[in-house]
Amino acid sequence: MKMVASDSLSRLTALHCSACGTEYSAYPLQRVSACCSLPLVADYDLREPLSRAVIDQNDTSMWRYGALLPLLNHDNKVTLGEGLTPLLRLPRLAARHELSSLLLKDEGQNPTGSFKARGLSMAVSKAKELGVDGCIIPTAGNAGVALAAYCARAGLRAVVVMPRHTPQAFQEECQWYGAEVELVDGLISDCGARVRQRNADGALLDISTLKEPYRLEGKKTMGYEIAEQLNWQLPDVLFYPAGGGTGLIGIWKAFQEMKALGWLAPDVKLPRMVAVQAENCCPLLETYLGHQPNCHAYQGRATLANGLAVPHPLGEDLMLRVLRESHGTVVSVSEEGMLDGMRDLGHQEGLFVAPEGGAVWTAARQLLATGWLHPDEQILLLNTGNGQKYMDNVAGRAWK
Amino acid sequence: MKMVASDSLSRLTALHCSACGTEYSAYPLQRVSACCSLPLVADYDLREPLSRAVIDQNDTSMWRYGALLPLLNHDNKVTLGEGLTPLLRLPRLAARHELSSLLLKDEGQNPTGSFKARGLSMAVSKAKELGVDGCIIPTAGNAGVALAAYCARAGLRAVVVMPRHTPQAFQEECQWYGAEVELVDGLISDCGARVRQRNADGALLDISTLKEPYRLEGKKTMGYEIAEQLNWQLPDVLFYPAGGGTGLIGIWKAFQEMKALGWLAPDVKLPRMVAVQAENCCPLLETYLGHQPNCHAYQGRATLANGLAVPHPLGEDLMLRVLRESHGTVVSVSEEGMLDGMRDLGHQEGLFVAPEGGAVWTAARQLLATGWLHPDEQILLLNTGNGQKYMDNVAGRAWK
Repeated sequence: MKMVASDSLSRLTALHCSACGTEYSAYPLQRVSACCSLPLVADYDLREPLSRAVIDQNDTSMWRYGALLPLLNHDNKVTLGEGLTPLLRLPRLAARHELSSLLLKDEGQNPTGSFKARGLSMAVSKAKELGVDGCIIPTAGNAGVALAAYCARAGLRAVVVMPRHTPQAFQEECQWYGAEVELVDGLISDCGARVRQRNADGALLDISTLKEPYRLEGKKTMGYEIAEQLNWQLPDVLFYPAGGGTGLIGIWKAFQEMKALGWLAPDVKLPRMVAVQAENCCPLLETYLGHQPNCHAYQGRATLANGLAVPHPLGEDLMLRVLRESHGTVVSVSEEGMLDGMRDLGHQEGLFVAPEGGAVWTAARQLLATGWLHPDEQILLLNTGNGQKYMDNVAGRAWK
Repeated sequence: MKMVASDSLSRLTALHCSACGTEYSAYPLQRVSACCSLPLVADYDLREPLSRAVIDQNDTSMWRYGALLPLLNHDNKVTLGEGLTPLLRLPRLAARHELSSLLLKDEGQNPTGSFKARGLSMAVSKAKELGVDGCIIPTAGNAGVALAAYCARAGLRAVVVMPRHTPQAFQEECQWYGAEVELVDGLISDCGARVRQRNADGALLDISTLKEPYRLEGKKTMGYEIAEQLNWQLPDVLFYPAGGGTGLIGIWKAFQEMKALGWLAPDVKLPRMVAVQAENCCPLLETYLGHQPNCHAYQGRATLANGLAVPHPLGEDLMLRVLRESHGTVVSVSEEGMLDGMRDLGHQEGLFVAPEGGAVWTAARQLLATGWLHPDEQILLLNTGNGQKYMDNVAGRAWK
């Protein structure tokens, strides 16, 4: 275990409890906060001036933002080249729907085919830095594949627990990385329970969404990249498929950090953030609408978008805060709506996206229809993964 | 059709026949040479000084080398963000085999999951620039998927002809891009015959490997990137899985162009190029060994590495020239050897590569064993694609 804070580029200072603000040291291994048993969030020194020149232009991965990432010693970096994914214009869909500016950030081009590469590259790097021997994760699919890959790369043991109905491609790919895979009847919440049982002795680091503070730091790099790729402007509205919600929370955190640093263009307005869920599993929508006090007793069902089948997200309060602060909203999309979105993006723009990516485009169309979204606003869709691993779910559905 | 050569950044001057050197204009649509019916190759003005500052550092795709690419008008660019893929160190495999420096360029992180994205982005962009309405391709899988995606993006018709035994994932993904897919009993050579028959009226552009000059120009960007990523040094030996061979030829062309431009470090030696084939289909090896005058009558069999099942590569002479000029060689790998290579890269380095990628690592081990390759040489492996679409071929084989 190496720790050379004094030589480090990182401006990491401490961690704080996301609920009550209590401060924690970032030097030992931390999980959730001892005070509230809720997510810990990383803090950086943002008062000392830091120019955008600190971005390493020779590094074409998310690690170019090293000063604002929590890794202290470069030697502990576990990377497969994740991040700096393309931000693509969608001119044909924009023309067809008379939109001024429609953009898509394609996270399917990451290692292991999804945005999960960012969070797991960061979390596994920190696990290595903090002397962990192995990791365990409950997953709807993509996070497990990413954990398996980065643990193999780091030489750490990996245990992946996923629902039995997860497409075969996810299970198989974990095996190719040498991970131990366990299948559970139920959704990711049931896998979480199994992880707690199996890891009762704490021998492995439980790397569940927001149960350690560093996956969030990997995910936030999407926010830094969006700003840099748009020349420090931001879109008017950002559509994000929210299951566990780390990406939504992380992107918003990045925007706040960049604002504090003075990196954004002076006249910039932060985007309205839209969380997109599946009709089959939309706990955040139900809470947002006041149909339930919180998601704790929510009953979700499986969906084509495996990543959206998260009935009890630990970050619910943090997501609601993002929606409130950004004047955003949350919408749900039907199973058929996801397929429609996938067909549009495939046939019109040459993008084979995950059902989650199909859902965000359909959600945008829904909000255009209600008038909440205006055709002259700049719209950014975030596609979290490649469609390939979902083939079991969508085979034969390419045409209506 | 737009053509504004005077405003263009491109230094394209003409095309020439790869066999006899006869010059052809690059302004009309060209296919193979009229003189020899062999591949046409693009020429650029490399005498007029051109500094490396011409590389567009804000463009994180292969299009950053625009001056040395054949597209004349930027508006015709059909892109999904292809290229600038990671060049990764493989420290765990290197340590295990006592190698000084082992690198892998991961083309699986391209749009559509393979290196084919480069060639097809370029060829479809040029097809659009030259006023083509639609394209047709015979394919072992990845090229068809890429053609389908880029044609969808450009709004062009796409017809993809592939062997019936191609894994379902390739066929399905083409459908998601709205392409017409035809299945043929046999190998890619049989698909080529079917393409000629189906397109007898020439209504579609036949975009078969080396039957038009621009896929090669897309593929050569791998060579530019390798040099830029190694700070204008080059590896000692480069392992490339050669089916049609466009990548091997293209990388070598890039090295020659950079040498002419003075872009490479002064003391640099060009790498020995190693073509890697499948034991089940190794026409180049058989010709190289003198077992046949050329590949015309070669009988190949199917292999797990669908992209290596190319019995009659049109670029055979060009490949042999690269091997000769670079003091390289050609090796073949068994089906089991490919799986061994995939397991090594997955379990040790967190990379789920195509069987073609598994083959290059096994080929390197074979040449280390014979002494042709030395452990203190810098070795670069080129992995052409992601393993996911090959799941039908390799499911259940993650462990020996």
